[in-house]
Amino acid sequence: MRWYCYLAAMQDRRMQAVEKISVGILGATGAVGQKFALLLEDHPWFKVGAVAASERSAGRPYAEVTSWKQPGEIPAAVRDLVVSRCEDDLNCEIVFSGLDSSVAGPIEEDFAKRGAWVFSNARNHRMASDVPLVIAEVNSDHLSLIDHQRVRRGWTGAIVTNANCSTIALAMSLSPLHRRFGVSKVQVATMQAISGAGFPGVPSIDILGNVIPFIPGEEEKIESETHKILGCLGEDEVVPAEFIVSAQANRVSVQEGHLECVSLQLSSKTRIADLEECWREFRGPPQDLGLPSAPHQPLVVRSQPDRPQPRLDLMEGDGMTVTVGRVRRCPILDFKYVLLGHNTIRGAAGASILNAELVFRDRFIG
Amino acid sequence: MRWYCYLAAMQDRRMQAVEKISVGILGATGAVGQKFALLLEDHPWFKVGAVAASERSAGRPYAEVTSWKQPGEIPAAVRDLVVSRCEDDLNCEIVFSGLDSSVAGPIEEDFAKRGAWVFSNARNHRMASDVPLVIAEVNSDHLSLIDHQRVRRGWTGAIVTNANCSTIALAMSLSPLHRRFGVSKVQVATMQAISGAGFPGVPSIDILGNVIPFIPGEEEKIESETHKILGCLGEDEVVPAEFIVSAQANRVSVQEGHLECVSLQLSSKTRIADLEECWREFRGPPQDLGLPSAPHQPLVVRSQPDRPQPRLDLMEGDGMTVTVGRVRRCPILDFKYVLLGHNTIRGAAGASILNAELVFRDRFIG
Amino acid sequence: MRWYCYLAAMQDRRMQAVEKISVGILGATGAVGQKFALLLEDHPWFKVGAVAASERSAGRPYAEVTSWKQPGEIPAAVRDLVVSRCEDDLNCEIVFSGLDSSVAGPIEEDFAKRGAWVFSNARNHRMASDVPLVIAEVNSDHLSLIDHQRVRRGWTGAIVTNANCSTIALAMSLSPLHRRFGVSKVQVATMQAISGAGFPGVPSIDILGNVIPFIPGEEEKIESETHKILGCLGEDEVVPAEFIVSAQANRVSVQEGHLECVSLQLSSKTRIADLEECWREFRGPPQDLGLPSAPHQPLVVRSQPDRPQPRLDLMEGDGMTVTVGRVRRCPILDFKYVLLGHNTIRGAAGASILNAELVFRDRFIG
Amino acid sequence: MRWYCYLAAMQDRRMQAVEKISVGILGATGAVGQKFALLLEDHPWFKVGAVAASERSAGRPYAEVTSWKQPGEIPAAVRDLVVSRCEDDLNCEIVFSGLDSSVAGPIEEDFAKRGAWVFSNARNHRMASDVPLVIAEVNSDHLSLIDHQRVRRGWTGAIVTNANCSTIALAMSLSPLHRRFGVSKVQVATMQAISGAGFPGVPSIDILGNVIPFIPGEEEKIESETHKILGCLGEDEVVPAEFIVSAQANRVSVQEGHLECVSLQLSSKTRIADLEECWREFRGPPQDLGLPSAPHQPLVVRSQPDRPQPRLDLMEGDGMTVTVGRVRRCPILDFKYVLLGHNTIRGAAGASILNAELVFRDRFIG
Repeated sequence: MRWYCYLAAMQDRRMQAVEKISVGILGATGAVGQKFALLLEDHPWFKVGAVAASERSAGRPYAEVTSWKQPGEIPAAVRDLVVSRCEDDLNCEIVFSGLDSSVAGPIEEDFAKRGAWVFSNARNHRMASDVPLVIAEVNSDHLSLIDHQRVRRGWTGAIVTNANCSTIALAMSLSPLHRRFGVSKVQVATMQAISGAGFPGVPSIDILGNVIPFIPGEEEKIESETHKILGCLGEDEVVPAEFIVSAQANRVSVQEGHLECVSLQLSSKTRIADLEECWREFRGPPQDLGLPSAPHQPLVVRSQPDRPQPRLDLMEGDGMTVTVGRVRRCPILDFKYVLLGHNTIRGAAGASILNAELVFRDRFIG
Repeated sequence: MRWYCYLAAMQDRRMQAVEKISVGILGATGAVGQKFALLLEDHPWFKVGAVAASERSAGRPYAEVTSWKQPGEIPAAVRDLVVSRCEDDLNCEIVFSGLDSSVAGPIEEDFAKRGAWVFSNARNHRMASDVPLVIAEVNSDHLSLIDHQRVRRGWTGAIVTNANCSTIALAMSLSPLHRRFGVSKVQVATMQAISGAGFPGVPSIDILGNVIPFIPGEEEKIESETHKILGCLGEDEVVPAEFIVSAQANRVSVQEGHLECVSLQLSSKTRIADLEECWREFRGPPQDLGLPSAPHQPLVVRSQPDRPQPRLDLMEGDGMTVTVGRVRRCPILDFKYVLLGHNTIRGAAGASILNAELVFRDRFIG
Repeated sequence: MRWYCYLAAMQDRRMQAVEKISVGILGATGAVGQKFALLLEDHPWFKVGAVAASERSAGRPYAEVTSWKQPGEIPAAVRDLVVSRCEDDLNCEIVFSGLDSSVAGPIEEDFAKRGAWVFSNARNHRMASDVPLVIAEVNSDHLSLIDHQRVRRGWTGAIVTNANCSTIALAMSLSPLHRRFGVSKVQVATMQAISGAGFPGVPSIDILGNVIPFIPGEEEKIESETHKILGCLGEDEVVPAEFIVSAQANRVSVQEGHLECVSLQLSSKTRIADLEECWREFRGPPQDLGLPSAPHQPLVVRSQPDRPQPRLDLMEGDGMTVTVGRVRRCPILDFKYVLLGHNTIRGAAGASILNAELVFRDRFIG
Repeated sequence: MRWYCYLAAMQDRRMQAVEKISVGILGATGAVGQKFALLLEDHPWFKVGAVAASERSAGRPYAEVTSWKQPGEIPAAVRDLVVSRCEDDLNCEIVFSGLDSSVAGPIEEDFAKRGAWVFSNARNHRMASDVPLVIAEVNSDHLSLIDHQRVRRGWTGAIVTNANCSTIALAMSLSPLHRRFGVSKVQVATMQAISGAGFPGVPSIDILGNVIPFIPGEEEKIESETHKILGCLGEDEVVPAEFIVSAQANRVSVQEGHLECVSLQLSSKTRIADLEECWREFRGPPQDLGLPSAPHQPLVVRSQPDRPQPRLDLMEGDGMTVTVGRVRRCPILDFKYVLLGHNTIRGAAGASILNAELVFRDRFIG
């Protein structure tokens, strides 16, 4: 991954004066954990200082216990790290969690209690009222829930979560529209990549040349998490957005990239050209601050009639951009469009890293 | 194909007295034409007497000019037939058309003018006011448009069309609901198999491990053809159904079987159990008459949470049944469900053959 | 499955007088076990009387504990059977084993000790000197090892094994050549379907759009099992064939059907036409006796330059025929050819059933 | 593509003094042509000055007539270039040809006659005795055939060809072994990606979930081209290598990356460790000279038992490295191994560009 190179170059002078933050990866041997290791290779602000996994892997070098599923070699920075147990103190200011939801809950809490910033992909704490569920471009103001979280829980650290992969891409596309026109109804049918199910995930015999029109819990997550992300920050919790979301989730024979067919109704009438402009102009704090993992454009609009496609548009913005296309009138609601998001970069590890960059920006950016 | 065997056995006595009808296949070397040849092998009423294709293939044996893409061998009945030109008189009472829409129009008209019954898969005449667009279980009464067609066009034959593959499956699932509860709005996102694009169709480099969120003309066809099929027969034309259809069509990495995610609103309120009962009890003339290609149940409802799937449910009713599942409430419209139809059997060649059986039933069934 | 229908009809009279044999399926909920249940539906000689699986499933109806992965519904004959533990006595004369090799060894032995005929797909006993490793058309004489097995082990039942899926197809193609010309060297590169790995088997993320050039233990099995199958029956064991086999096994993105590229050297010189004739004329006891699961032709030779292919030739002989094609000279050894076998029918469950038919033929065939 | 960045940086000073060479792309709208456009984006020595295609596209902007099939956008450098006819003079010192072999012959000759260096992927001139068939690391000495070619044909330009995609990867793996141990026999079974067939190439219905054991002309090309590449330069032609090659070519469901199972016999006996060392140490002029497109290591040896795999190893050396693995004894010949090469980079466009860099190195490297 070389997606920081230009920005990094510009920040070089400052960088030399500031020490990188040592970060830990929880669930480091799993699918999301591997993506963290990959995206953190050569990161200008963070360096991986510890990797933790289950009891079974603990005490042995990362390269030895990890069934590496990413293209290329295991990054040199983690290859020889000795794997810790997830219960160990990792001595890291930041911890990225790629833990499975079956175990993530108490482990993440322990780290926050001991003073670490936990940036988590697990669903366990996403809907807790004092835990921010953040897309850096969309609702960075929700990070202020942390104050409340710390007081209430007596923590010196914090837990910041990012949403489910298909939700992140959807919410990014809705966010600028909701601000400007008001969203009132959203119908979405997803076609989700197999990598969204982790490893080993979906058996090949189930999905090769097939579509499975069901992903357990996914439709509920899309509906509830979108409401929280696009909700308004109240005194000590988020007031969920009030529009209606109806989701249909499907698993398709694609390695990476979730495609979603959206139909939506807006509160105020507008034109297709205005929607597209609204998406094209969308920027958030990551772009304004020039965060290392921020894509130049969070949303790209494609004009070709058959785009976006996973094969062609997946790596837009190094996997951090959501691509939108086929915007047209819907005879039932107002508009229809198609969106594509990289489910393991923007929809998982990359989203967590961007959140961490947002929180720790002051240390690196004047 | 052995899907007639039981019925055929029962009809054996009668059959021995009646001669099979000689049928022709137009566009016989193409994808749909091959499916006709396959489904007509061992048909109890019809036997293939002629195959026609483009100038290039004419005059040579079918097996020699056909790049056979179906599992198994070319059926013996057609293997050695000499290919005619589509302009030739085939001396067949029935002609099944698998012609491409770029040429189907005038060729089909010529056959009807010369006295043949043309059962066509091409889109050319589907929306003509005097041409029936028929699903045998759904709107067989529309066949009476033929009288008007003959008078108006001065034909002794006739053209009967069947709908686009994704439309047929959708309309079958809507039909019993529309009759009983009234359909008012239909939102549908399709995931369509590559075989729907014929041969050579979609280049593999475009679709392997990918989804293409666009099929030219498909969404328009789903919207208009559904209206005509579920419309009411007026004096000399069909009054289209008035509900709203909004379609989003996608091509996925599946060989055969179109999956569709439907969300619909009904005119009268009802319960999930009633919808399911309505589908389960659905029968039409093909079932009542015991037509050779009629599935026992036109619609099957699956109770498993992850069904229907192309891999598992494609051949239900030998490819003539549409499978429905995942029926649940929709927070925007009323209900959501998933359906699967075999696009080249129920959605193309099988549909035409069933229509022909319906028209010619009197000759074989007391 | 209707592949017995014609033969069954002919045997009807006799059948009515003879009671079907009650058979049990070990590992009934797994991938091979499901295939047994499917192939035994409507079998003219056998009916499934018991299904056994692990402790976890025991005591509950088959349909309730089985994640059914075959097209269509669970056969009615097994749907409501209460699952036994594999340690239970199933009171069946015949037991088909689809057990995993991690547990198959002692369980199969116990059944044989208690008097059952065990027809096994597991690799545990294949290479034991007193256990026949049989392809019904190829080495049915090896069944006489059973006498020795019973004496030596003090069993009243017996264990008969069939080979690894890729070996069966290869050995079938080699058998008639070896008899007539003598095989001296065999180089084979396989491209094997994912269903060969059972369920859950290969994770989709590993194989979708990919090839894995390694299947643990497969190359060794191809080399050793081929030698035993094509070996000569000695006094109380098989003298392995002496030709050299060199195998390279690959896993490809195919649901069912193993394709193999073979290069071979023969002891006596011959012509391509003679090889093809030798394959076409190949028949064995299953064909001579008209066994219910016997394909009309065990080996079919395709003349098209691009055949066999899994998609087109998989179901030849209802999955019991091996298809051969592309026979041509090899500049290093003598000849090259390509073969295809259905890995879960001819390569697994179907092979076991055919072996059982061979053993029990006397009870059903005059 | 950023694979020149480090080297480019080092050469920056020199570069500023030297003007880039303007190159043309023949067949620029096709699959190979697009890859040329992509790989030449930001090239430190070459810039695309002209694109040529068929009559149909001529006179219109590249972006308008090209159905772009590569990930991401059309490179800015070619987007607005007006497409020339292939018969036009492009005023380029270098011409890269991605032309189809049906037209490449005379067009490439015309360019050479008019003084251009033609680096061609087409098979038309590969086997001509006065045309070098070059892999830059392997047989750069064959470039001296150009002198003979010019004299004989009266050209001021020249034609340099690179081999067929599967041949390049095979020959690279054989080259160091042949030099050190002598290769005597090579048996190879390939599993080739669909992108090797260009666009539209293989219809999806033929290959999705399937293997096609035949690629027209491929086996012959592998056999003859390998001989020429590894042959010795004689007085005015190449004396082909004398070892025997026997190839079996298969098309599999993979987007990019040809995998090959090789079995080979060497003239002198050696050990596996020596083979591996021989591959690891292999370097050629591109590495010695630090050519912009040269991978650090032309051959990488993988120690994991299930590597190389297209999904994981495709982009090794930015697609210019061939990965080797699974080296083991062969009981028939001496050794077996598996190799993987990127068919459209190292096997096509990248190979041509590297050849051009080798020829024009003097202008950029002191």
